[in-house]
Amino acid sequence: MATFKLMLEYDGTDFEGWQSQPSGHRTVQGTLEAVLARIAGGRVPVAGAGRTDSGVHAEGQVASAALATRLGAHELQRALNAQLPPDLAVVDVEEAPGGFHARYDARAKVYRYEVWNAPSPSPLRARRTWHRPLPLDVAAMAAAAAAFEGTHDFSALRAAGSRAGDPVRTLHRVAVRGSAGGLLWVEVAGTGFLRHMVRNLIGTLVEVGYGRRAVGAMTELLAGRDRGAAGPTAPARGLTLVRVEYGPPAGGFPRRDRELAASALDSPEALG
Amino acid sequence: MATFKLMLEYDGTDFEGWQSQPSGHRTVQGTLEAVLARIAGGRVPVAGAGRTDSGVHAEGQVASAALATRLGAHELQRALNAQLPPDLAVVDVEEAPGGFHARYDARAKVYRYEVWNAPSPSPLRARRTWHRPLPLDVAAMAAAAAAFEGTHDFSALRAAGSRAGDPVRTLHRVAVRGSAGGLLWVEVAGTGFLRHMVRNLIGTLVEVGYGRRAVGAMTELLAGRDRGAAGPTAPARGLTLVRVEYGPPAGGFPRRDRELAASALDSPEALG
Repeated sequence: MATFKLMLEYDGTDFEGWQSQPSGHRTVQGTLEAVLARIAGGRVPVAGAGRTDSGVHAEGQVASAALATRLGAHELQRALNAQLPPDLAVVDVEEAPGGFHARYDARAKVYRYEVWNAPSPSPLRARRTWHRPLPLDVAAMAAAAAAFEGTHDFSALRAAGSRAGDPVRTLHRVAVRGSAGGLLWVEVAGTGFLRHMVRNLIGTLVEVGYGRRAVGAMTELLAGRDRGAAGPTAPARGLTLVRVEYGPPAGGFPRRDRELAASALDSPEALG
Repeated sequence: MATFKLMLEYDGTDFEGWQSQPSGHRTVQGTLEAVLARIAGGRVPVAGAGRTDSGVHAEGQVASAALATRLGAHELQRALNAQLPPDLAVVDVEEAPGGFHARYDARAKVYRYEVWNAPSPSPLRARRTWHRPLPLDVAAMAAAAAAFEGTHDFSALRAAGSRAGDPVRTLHRVAVRGSAGGLLWVEVAGTGFLRHMVRNLIGTLVEVGYGRRAVGAMTELLAGRDRGAAGPTAPARGLTLVRVEYGPPAGGFPRRDRELAASALDSPEALG
């Protein structure tokens, strides 16, 4: 058995998310496992670093798979791409140490959310962006975003009806970029994410950008731990899993961070 | 009656080109005319600057339409966008002088062709690019492209089986940009285009980029006027109509250029 680390790019529009589901649902994991089964001649379970929701895209999703094959990494990549549909591709493959697990071993994930902020819709950007026609105050959004950086209880931003579990997560960076009347994007990097956390964060920041919510109100919002007090869930199509980071930083993790990362990434709610 | 100049953006993937066709075919012109008819309460013929083929996109297609309406330009734009599908939008509207015609009055059109030049396919770019997996020699392509600038008989690059008509066209610019292992694009600006001319030009340049055709052979290729001697037709999905230019340049057109422009743009083959 050889263990492989696969880097995936996909257009999430026509997938019902990452996670395999009962037949009839087209998922990224299910599509990849079906092609791997043909290549390996038997079922090959695949683990993904981020269990992206329906409609969410990926530029650098990472999956791990162990299979009995004589193919090298490059040959496996070519065999997979020859059979995968146009909206899913393996952009890199490397052989990984035995036991490598794309989700448990991930150190951090980086997501990007894109907003098309112009009066008219943009058909060429429609699959990748959320169209907000009125001008957004980017500086106010950037100032509000800073309050989400660090380690916090993110209950206020978790999906409504979400299951129990530790709601504490660490975000290394929440950066807002862009100009009025064009593309605006928010990059969010962290060790783990609650379900819909990034999209609820974006929905809240957009309310700040529209002046409907005060820049200084974010700390209080988190402290209240009330999902009903935050903004709406931004649509999935604006969200892209950009990359997944592995390996400890120079000097290794402090112990507390390692535990946090493990608990966050292992949770059934660790969805972007 | 008021005459309007409409700037359009569309994702051409799910349209069977610009031009209206018998019912059952979804075209850009047909979709726009159907919505205009509802707004104006009667049929409104629309003229497009470039009759883009099936699968070709537009960032700045221009259309003209004359209709009896009390709506101002901005209100008309909003009314149209409220009813158009997500893959077609009006990104700008202005009232134009009576008699303005998007195609006859166009001075030049600019197209961009995008190639994804990397070993693996890119699902997030698949609708907008032609995937060429082996490394292209961008410098050789740029050198070859220069031979197409100026006024030439472009018979060698016109669609096979294309109807008679003056095959002479003027290209102001054929510029190749990009880096090995990534996005490569070719910008082509000219007064008018024969059917499939840009896509045949791209198919030929890609053969130069692969070393299968000499950089210096382009002048001879044009002189031979033989469609069979040029490269294959590049797929429509890589092509985008970027913008259409109106109004004479400072100092006005020289007489010869004006005649050329009129004949090129008026021809039934003036397709990108």
